[in-house]
Amino acid sequence: MTAELLTPAELKQTLLAVGHEQYHHKHPFHLRMHDGQLTREQLQAWALNRYYYQSRIPIKDAIILSRSTDAAFRRAWLKRILDHDGSPEHPGGIEKWLRLAEATGLDRSDVISERKVLPAVRYAVDAYVGLVSRGTLLEAVASSLTELFSRDLISLRIHALRQHYPWIDSGLSYFTSRLSQAPEDASFALDYVTRNAFTREQQESVIMALRHKCDILWAQLDAIYFAYVTPGWPPPAESKGCL
Amino acid sequence: MTAELLTPAELKQTLLAVGHEQYHHKHPFHLRMHDGQLTREQLQAWALNRYYYQSRIPIKDAIILSRSTDAAFRRAWLKRILDHDGSPEHPGGIEKWLRLAEATGLDRSDVISERKVLPAVRYAVDAYVGLVSRGTLLEAVASSLTELFSRDLISLRIHALRQHYPWIDSGLSYFTSRLSQAPEDASFALDYVTRNAFTREQQESVIMALRHKCDILWAQLDAIYFAYVTPGWPPPAESKGCL
Repeated sequence: MTAELLTPAELKQTLLAVGHEQYHHKHPFHLRMHDGQLTREQLQAWALNRYYYQSRIPIKDAIILSRSTDAAFRRAWLKRILDHDGSPEHPGGIEKWLRLAEATGLDRSDVISERKVLPAVRYAVDAYVGLVSRGTLLEAVASSLTELFSRDLISLRIHALRQHYPWIDSGLSYFTSRLSQAPEDASFALDYVTRNAFTREQQESVIMALRHKCDILWAQLDAIYFAYVTPGWPPPAESKGCL
Repeated sequence: MTAELLTPAELKQTLLAVGHEQYHHKHPFHLRMHDGQLTREQLQAWALNRYYYQSRIPIKDAIILSRSTDAAFRRAWLKRILDHDGSPEHPGGIEKWLRLAEATGLDRSDVISERKVLPAVRYAVDAYVGLVSRGTLLEAVASSLTELFSRDLISLRIHALRQHYPWIDSGLSYFTSRLSQAPEDASFALDYVTRNAFTREQQESVIMALRHKCDILWAQLDAIYFAYVTPGWPPPAESKGCL
């Protein structure tokens, strides 16, 4: 017997439950960050590694855009690339992330070089690019739905960073911009998956894509925690693994 | 000025130095294994997760085979697929690995399902398949050169497993087979990269491919250590992350 189609409200409820269970807001690295327990070096490691994720966002969005034959969809999705890549007059998310990295004391060119990115962070991010390349368009869009949960996390983070790491204050524009961008993006993507998952099987693929994306975010923090918090073991090739 | 071509002996020396620095024989998870400090559950986690790597080996070898127009090369490389996939009469590496997993107390179908593989192990292994798909054929072959180092590690491991975990003894045929297979394979691959890296740039690409492969092996153990040793945090979706 085929399972019944979820109503839009049930689908949304299920997606929110995935976020509650698996989104990286509960990761011990973030809990330490928000409790003021990270050292400057650990925040640097986070900013440097997470830059690799940021740098791949417009690439994955361009792949998604390239996979749709619907001009209206493409126009809507293009906003995400503009938000991240920006322009000389209007710095985008990537430039803002670099300013965050500089506020932690990192050298901009060192971050851009990506030489010190942990291998496991690279694999997780590349898996995200793979997911949007090889999954269905529906799954690719659904994988962006972690943005449903990011406003709450970012609100908390801005507050916590200002309180515990005041020296980082000049680098927070990435997060303040995302406070309005992420909910707009999430709303569009949620509407899209609701309208385009016509079967229960497709709905399940949407839910699973969101689970995979949560894994991808979580695994990045696991790697950073392992290398720079506990046990504190970066990979053996110092030139690549250490800050 | 272009750097000079390394002699075959210099290239080999450099590759051996990469292994000395980066191969996973020094990973704390293996050190604990060989010291008899792992629990049965931790050995199960290792067998289950490493199965995902084993299961992808014939796939990556088929990709490498598919990329060569040289029938002699293809015939030589085919041996690896046979070694891993075996036949009903002659169990191959994958079947032998399943017997190892069973010897630790795992259920065979549970291992085959791949449901409990850690996301970060999946990403690392998929990165290996990606490397042989998208790198040059020279890099793809070079990435197999970790087999230069595996005989020493496997010899040590067989001894240590028998000594510290005698209940695993019935599952060791994977390792005893690899004692002879790995050096044959490594010798062919080393000869291939020596004869086919015509420029210093190509030689450097060979060295870098071996470094990447070492990262891929190391990152798998990091993930297993993180989830099941210290701090012992599997991902939040219990159904997928926990044993």
